[in-house]
Amino acid sequence: MIRVTVWNEYLHEINQPEVAAIYPEGIHGCIAEFLGRNEDITVRTATLSMPQNGLPEEVLENTDVLIWWGHMAHDRVEDETVMRVHRHVLSGMGLVALHSAHHSKVMKTLLGTTLNLKWRHGDRERVWCIAPAHPIAKGVPQQFLLPCEEMYGEPFDIPTPDETLFLGWFSGGEVFRSGVTFTRGKGRIFYFQPGHEEYPIYHDENVQRIITNGVRWACISDISRGEIPVENPEPLEG
Amino acid sequence: MIRVTVWNEYLHEINQPEVAAIYPEGIHGCIAEFLGRNEDITVRTATLSMPQNGLPEEVLENTDVLIWWGHMAHDRVEDETVMRVHRHVLSGMGLVALHSAHHSKVMKTLLGTTLNLKWRHGDRERVWCIAPAHPIAKGVPQQFLLPCEEMYGEPFDIPTPDETLFLGWFSGGEVFRSGVTFTRGKGRIFYFQPGHEEYPIYHDENVQRIITNGVRWACISDISRGEIPVENPEPLEG
Amino acid sequence: MIRVTVWNEYLHEINQPEVAAIYPEGIHGCIAEFLGRNEDITVRTATLSMPQNGLPEEVLENTDVLIWWGHMAHDRVEDETVMRVHRHVLSGMGLVALHSAHHSKVMKTLLGTTLNLKWRHGDRERVWCIAPAHPIAKGVPQQFLLPCEEMYGEPFDIPTPDETLFLGWFSGGEVFRSGVTFTRGKGRIFYFQPGHEEYPIYHDENVQRIITNGVRWACISDISRGEIPVENPEPLEG
Amino acid sequence: MIRVTVWNEYLHEINQPEVAAIYPEGIHGCIAEFLGRNEDITVRTATLSMPQNGLPEEVLENTDVLIWWGHMAHDRVEDETVMRVHRHVLSGMGLVALHSAHHSKVMKTLLGTTLNLKWRHGDRERVWCIAPAHPIAKGVPQQFLLPCEEMYGEPFDIPTPDETLFLGWFSGGEVFRSGVTFTRGKGRIFYFQPGHEEYPIYHDENVQRIITNGVRWACISDISRGEIPVENPEPLEG
Repeated sequence: MIRVTVWNEYLHEINQPEVAAIYPEGIHGCIAEFLGRNEDITVRTATLSMPQNGLPEEVLENTDVLIWWGHMAHDRVEDETVMRVHRHVLSGMGLVALHSAHHSKVMKTLLGTTLNLKWRHGDRERVWCIAPAHPIAKGVPQQFLLPCEEMYGEPFDIPTPDETLFLGWFSGGEVFRSGVTFTRGKGRIFYFQPGHEEYPIYHDENVQRIITNGVRWACISDISRGEIPVENPEPLEG
Repeated sequence: MIRVTVWNEYLHEINQPEVAAIYPEGIHGCIAEFLGRNEDITVRTATLSMPQNGLPEEVLENTDVLIWWGHMAHDRVEDETVMRVHRHVLSGMGLVALHSAHHSKVMKTLLGTTLNLKWRHGDRERVWCIAPAHPIAKGVPQQFLLPCEEMYGEPFDIPTPDETLFLGWFSGGEVFRSGVTFTRGKGRIFYFQPGHEEYPIYHDENVQRIITNGVRWACISDISRGEIPVENPEPLEG
Repeated sequence: MIRVTVWNEYLHEINQPEVAAIYPEGIHGCIAEFLGRNEDITVRTATLSMPQNGLPEEVLENTDVLIWWGHMAHDRVEDETVMRVHRHVLSGMGLVALHSAHHSKVMKTLLGTTLNLKWRHGDRERVWCIAPAHPIAKGVPQQFLLPCEEMYGEPFDIPTPDETLFLGWFSGGEVFRSGVTFTRGKGRIFYFQPGHEEYPIYHDENVQRIITNGVRWACISDISRGEIPVENPEPLEG
Repeated sequence: MIRVTVWNEYLHEINQPEVAAIYPEGIHGCIAEFLGRNEDITVRTATLSMPQNGLPEEVLENTDVLIWWGHMAHDRVEDETVMRVHRHVLSGMGLVALHSAHHSKVMKTLLGTTLNLKWRHGDRERVWCIAPAHPIAKGVPQQFLLPCEEMYGEPFDIPTPDETLFLGWFSGGEVFRSGVTFTRGKGRIFYFQPGHEEYPIYHDENVQRIITNGVRWACISDISRGEIPVENPEPLEG
């Protein structure tokens, strides 16, 4: 059983009726719902306004994969929360970072770059799969259309990804590495670009399949968890 | 002309006569000397005790490649210095991080992992080149011996390197990714493991050649410098 | 159920009594036996002397992962066999290439390099895991000893691997990238160095675990199988 | 001085007046002309119809970087020529493969995959640079327009590139990894997608700059040339 925690800053849905109309249970509620349909996945949710941002030690200790959605309040996530999440990722908790999570403190701390990019509301995207044998691409068509999505464009200031799985084409002329993976410590990280709050992206079945696959890919064996240590051993030889 | 700044915490050489005997001008002085013999390289040095740790804005603005050696005083480097260096690397300043610089705040901030590893004093190392066509390997033999060196051993908690150039073999039974490269933003980073302060590693001609090659590799064109921006452009098409 | 075919040239075991003593059922028999203990794996074997080298079209069509062991008779594998295997790997059949399979026609055709390396009989190896969160490393200790193994040493003429999972330390002073992965077309390839025929390497429980993990990692979903095509489509847009 | 040989099958220019109008000296003549304007580069050309396809041993021995353009006659390149080129690339001769060279025997032999892709004549391309600090991107704008170019689209059946430098956006809705690098043996390979023979792509100044940069990047030091050998050495230790 994969234990997923879906984290959402949960502000757009409260303050913007048009977003609430798309996600009446919040973006986290939508994601929790479609993930929870899988027999091998159990889901809880957490949001910014909860004590310790909903991510105290005991939650992270019991999380195999954390999903992160944040946008307008990255700076309101407590530094202690960021440090806890950072430490747990390095110890093997998976992370699926969605859309504007690119600029979250968690992602900046893990990846070390600005994660800057181009953006523009109200574009049309085609998501192309360029790694058709990858587990995250299982059951995903060669390409699919998101009729209305925010444009995210290159250059995207990320470290060289371990794998580039999806490329985004935008009608305004831009391209983007829309699905990329990283390993940090023992933690497997999947960043997936689609998901602007004003469009029903997380209701799209291909997006749901990719996120579900991403959760399964990011989950490592319990026996592998734990930080990579500093050690001062005796010689093994000689 | 490549403008290099060699940074050293410069404490071992002051406090330990046996280290001063090996590096009477400091580790930075030794590195500056052999780099300065090259007509295409101009060198200055900076140390921990200087104002702003010797790395004020105007120094970094005029540095193409920064070399970093630190060990016992990582936590005494000012956070403002770390942030300045971080920003300049992302904007294209090259970084050659030597030996115990793996645990520096600069490297942790850029790479996002613990950079933990194994260590043990007084081992014997063979450095193997596994990327013989790489510019950093130019003129370097297939392998060379460091008769006395500190063992650094795997697992080494680094992100997947862009390139793995050297592997270290240690007589005690350990192995290490002894030379690896990363790109962060526009900055090219070369980490090279040899260089424990108690052994005359930076007097070794192969080590000198590798560091010199690393400087040339890490230097990018002036016209390419500058942070990757956030932009909100009009559509190019449609 | 993962359908594995274990291919072995099966000559050493017939011609050298000391090898037959270690592998009375052949290396393929030993590997098939320990893989077959897993409920999710079904195994068949094939050898060089069979018609079409034991790998006719119908066998490959029904193989999810092919394991390859060959050494002294690489040139006796028929070119048609090599082409069939090559085509099936590109279409998504996994490949686990063991030890001296590095110089097989199948590996040379897939990877495009010489796969040259250093070698010497009768060394002692420590296999270090440098990617502890990888599925192939599941349940594998940080390092383990092979008291007697053939040395394979760098430089190893392979393309940049997708992932480097294991490094080998040899008592004679050499190092090696002992476990590496590649993707070619839709096929996932795992090369693992241990396995000289004169030593009981495939009876080692860590080696068995790694090969078993490798089989699971290399198996892709049936719905993903098939060659990446040439297409001349109408525009999707505009 | 970098010694470049520009190879062209040179058939379109002879048989199609509209192509001859764009490239009166052949595509090879155009490329040789703009490369030859650089003081550090000396150029010769070779074409399919010459003895040994213009690439006998003595030409390759004196070539630092080979540029390859072929399209309609891949199968008319002699197998001996392919083997010679393959061997020289593995020994350190650089290779810049342009446009439809993706399907050449040289590229298939070096990379091991089908190199299949999508294609369609008469599209519009924007080439985006996603690695702005790379030597091949020196002086290249963030993006540039090719008003008329053949669409090449994903999925592109290539091995994981060492580096992805350029992404192509096509008005018909496709994307492509338009500039990628590989290392094979000691040879550095740069594949660059633009260059359909019916459009004046090689007269574009950005394309010329990228190819010129690619030549400089692909050229390795003479002292590094030579095949990676098989060796059976005595132990260095113990």
